[in-house]
Amino acid sequence: MPEMEKPSRYYRCSVARTLEILGDRWVFLILRELFFGVRYYDQFQSNLGIATNILSNRLKTLINNGILNKHKSPNDRRRFVYKLTEKGRDIYAISLAFMNWGDKWLAGDNGPPLILHHKTCGHQLEPVLTCKYCKKVVDPRDVTYEDHVDQC
Amino acid sequence: MPEMEKPSRYYRCSVARTLEILGDRWVFLILRELFFGVRYYDQFQSNLGIATNILSNRLKTLINNGILNKHKSPNDRRRFVYKLTEKGRDIYAISLAFMNWGDKWLAGDNGPPLILHHKTCGHQLEPVLTCKYCKKVVDPRDVTYEDHVDQC
Repeated sequence: MPEMEKPSRYYRCSVARTLEILGDRWVFLILRELFFGVRYYDQFQSNLGIATNILSNRLKTLINNGILNKHKSPNDRRRFVYKLTEKGRDIYAISLAFMNWGDKWLAGDNGPPLILHHKTCGHQLEPVLTCKYCKKVVDPRDVTYEDHVDQC
Repeated sequence: MPEMEKPSRYYRCSVARTLEILGDRWVFLILRELFFGVRYYDQFQSNLGIATNILSNRLKTLINNGILNKHKSPNDRRRFVYKLTEKGRDIYAISLAFMNWGDKWLAGDNGPPLILHHKTCGHQLEPVLTCKYCKKVVDPRDVTYEDHVDQC
């Protein structure tokens, strides 16, 4: 579909804007590896079994969108280290929301394949989406929408 | 990549499993419409400007994965109503996490294009991911991982 034919609602929503950058399975698997502490190209490649042209393309997209930085390794100047920026680290909430849904609905009888622990309180981590102000768990039926029509 | 060559880590994680179903931009835009209250095929089509073959394919994927139900409309038996199941409604946390990140990092000087209100407390909704037990906001640096190696 040519760009101009997209309805304005498509652009107005931050979900759509976010998906323009993050709406790709490989991008999310690379981000998951980064949250696990992976920093080098060959580690992404071997952990994910991803084709090098796809990996290079997705790393470039992440760098161009300010989600990732690429530096020469201080230990070996021929290698590059990939690190999340603050904008990148902030994607953790999305990644955790993905994992949480998968654990609940796709894991089956064996339970979650990966157990997360919250060092802060010592419990197994069960993340919930809450309202910053009243601290209650957010239910879609309790949310109303208001178009900010001045823009886009 | 043939299925058998995927490394086991790819399968073990619920992020990867979730992305097998939800790792598609159109799927998320259809889900967003459902959270806005859209229920009919022609509404999805006109709101998103999506090609009918893609829309039909994605709706089928969502139904086959138990995320959506399709019923004949009680008002017009020639039309179908699409409704989220409980498994589908539970994707709201992911959708909200997407919107939240987009609002923070992509909205620019004009602010978020869509304002959400939390009816429960009357505030503008700012969702945060918190630990179910200690209620603290989850920071990736406070989370440790433990492989549940018995399975997958």
